[in-house]
Amino acid sequence: MQQIEAYQKSFITYLEDFTVHKEPNNLYAPINYILNLGGKRLRPVLTLMTSEVFGQTAQKAMDAALSIEVFHNFSLVHDDIMDDAPLRRGKATVHEKWDVNTGILSGDAMLILAYQLFENYEPNTFQSLAKLFSKTALEVCEGQQYDIDFETRNDVTIPEYLKMIEYKTAVLVGAAMKMGAIVADASENDQNIIYDFGRYLGIAFQLQDDYLDAFGNPETFGKQVGGDILENKKTYLYLKTLELGTDLDQKELLSLMDKSEISNDDKVKAVKLFFEKTGAANETQKAVKDYTNKAFTVLEHLNISEDKKRLLKLFGEQLMNRNV
Amino acid sequence: MQQIEAYQKSFITYLEDFTVHKEPNNLYAPINYILNLGGKRLRPVLTLMTSEVFGQTAQKAMDAALSIEVFHNFSLVHDDIMDDAPLRRGKATVHEKWDVNTGILSGDAMLILAYQLFENYEPNTFQSLAKLFSKTALEVCEGQQYDIDFETRNDVTIPEYLKMIEYKTAVLVGAAMKMGAIVADASENDQNIIYDFGRYLGIAFQLQDDYLDAFGNPETFGKQVGGDILENKKTYLYLKTLELGTDLDQKELLSLMDKSEISNDDKVKAVKLFFEKTGAANETQKAVKDYTNKAFTVLEHLNISEDKKRLLKLFGEQLMNRNV
Repeated sequence: MQQIEAYQKSFITYLEDFTVHKEPNNLYAPINYILNLGGKRLRPVLTLMTSEVFGQTAQKAMDAALSIEVFHNFSLVHDDIMDDAPLRRGKATVHEKWDVNTGILSGDAMLILAYQLFENYEPNTFQSLAKLFSKTALEVCEGQQYDIDFETRNDVTIPEYLKMIEYKTAVLVGAAMKMGAIVADASENDQNIIYDFGRYLGIAFQLQDDYLDAFGNPETFGKQVGGDILENKKTYLYLKTLELGTDLDQKELLSLMDKSEISNDDKVKAVKLFFEKTGAANETQKAVKDYTNKAFTVLEHLNISEDKKRLLKLFGEQLMNRNV
Repeated sequence: MQQIEAYQKSFITYLEDFTVHKEPNNLYAPINYILNLGGKRLRPVLTLMTSEVFGQTAQKAMDAALSIEVFHNFSLVHDDIMDDAPLRRGKATVHEKWDVNTGILSGDAMLILAYQLFENYEPNTFQSLAKLFSKTALEVCEGQQYDIDFETRNDVTIPEYLKMIEYKTAVLVGAAMKMGAIVADASENDQNIIYDFGRYLGIAFQLQDDYLDAFGNPETFGKQVGGDILENKKTYLYLKTLELGTDLDQKELLSLMDKSEISNDDKVKAVKLFFEKTGAANETQKAVKDYTNKAFTVLEHLNISEDKKRLLKLFGEQLMNRNV
């Protein structure tokens, strides 16, 4: 999709201009570093696209798009500290390259900068954007807390898991699109529909991520295939396997998770067998399709041309047919 | 001052109602904990008082006052992690009672909650409050970064130190008052004057804190007297001693800071002697008076009754004559 690439390009130009040349350098250098590590810039592209879909220019939505990207990167900086992650997009994380205190403080500054990016909008738009932003940002924190809580719980249910990924990942996709609609002064009804479209797509995206983590092509998937399995993560695949499997399947899967005398490769292979034979792998792909279809269904109620609906749908399809 | 106590009381009632009864508990319990550890609630009281000074009710300014207090406590939670501090107001800090990750995430949520507290104001007031808040919050981060940078620098100048405490402490006092003025719809000129009044008072307050840390009455001063000396902190007292002392004074003070074979009591006593004999102690008290007078001078240009000016002045005097 050439149009997507055009949005990406103009966004990256705008992002580069945002580089903060301010003192103290130790506060702002990590911000410039993380913002320039790359990534697909999907969220800001969605903001720009939605603004155009509702008849406004992409340019007008640039600050809102940048706010979403700055917030997303803030959450990466703080999450990477919490997860003790050494790498992000193949490069050292902020707290590794500098230290934990720098990661905390620079992250805080990014959260504030994300709000400041709304300041050029007039008061009513400003308030709508900032309200949506605060609600969303708080939900992302709640999602992260649930994710942390789940690590030490053995009774996580699938509805709980779905709520966690909705908060941690999907609401920001919804908000990215709704911000484009707010900037374009779309009707409240259209704003809410596009939010739901993004939110459903975000859930589908995360479920797809869970699936690809186990079944993706090692040559095209960005991360280590089987990483979730080796971390004993309670993903949709895992929870669904427990739900669908026999008592014996459950027992064997749980004992596999605890086993230390098995090689990583063997563990990944063995767990994947359970994911497949219980039907959980298929069910996960089905759930991806279901949430994608939910997204497409709400789209129908949107008050825009069929052409524009097709554009949004095409974007959703591309997102879901990815194998990276 | 009975009026101050009345503001405190009504603020604390409002704060208690703010207690967040939401899930996930692990995110919100630490927020309720830190907000209810006590403290003088000086900043929110200033917001309420300023609102009344400019003809609005204190009640109208309650959410803005609460936002200032939530932000202040957010900064305490994150600063305590960075400083590895075990205690806050005599109780366990959040990262001690829970863990560092909880401190980071709950702090993030507090920063967002602080913005949400402006949402009940109409769009123009909302934007003014949020803009001032973002500018101030970013300066507080910058001040914290300067403070961290200064720990490993040996060439910190007094103007640099003054800028650091202005950002880390004073701008929030100025912003607390300006928010009261914004809620009361005071003229821009009056808003800026009351901001400067608070900012100068904030600098005086911090310099007084530096002084009391060494020369306060151990029985009434809340913290350990001499704490800054034992931490080798580059306070105004310390920097002024280096500036005013002879080459020999400088040498002896620096060697005292490095000495490990001396008892804490002896070190505090010896360093205080240098603070006094170089005249730095007197200069610090003079600086406190100078900044207080600057605050009182800008007050004269304010477009309010003499009665109200007296109230603000009285508050400033009480703050500066404190020995706790």
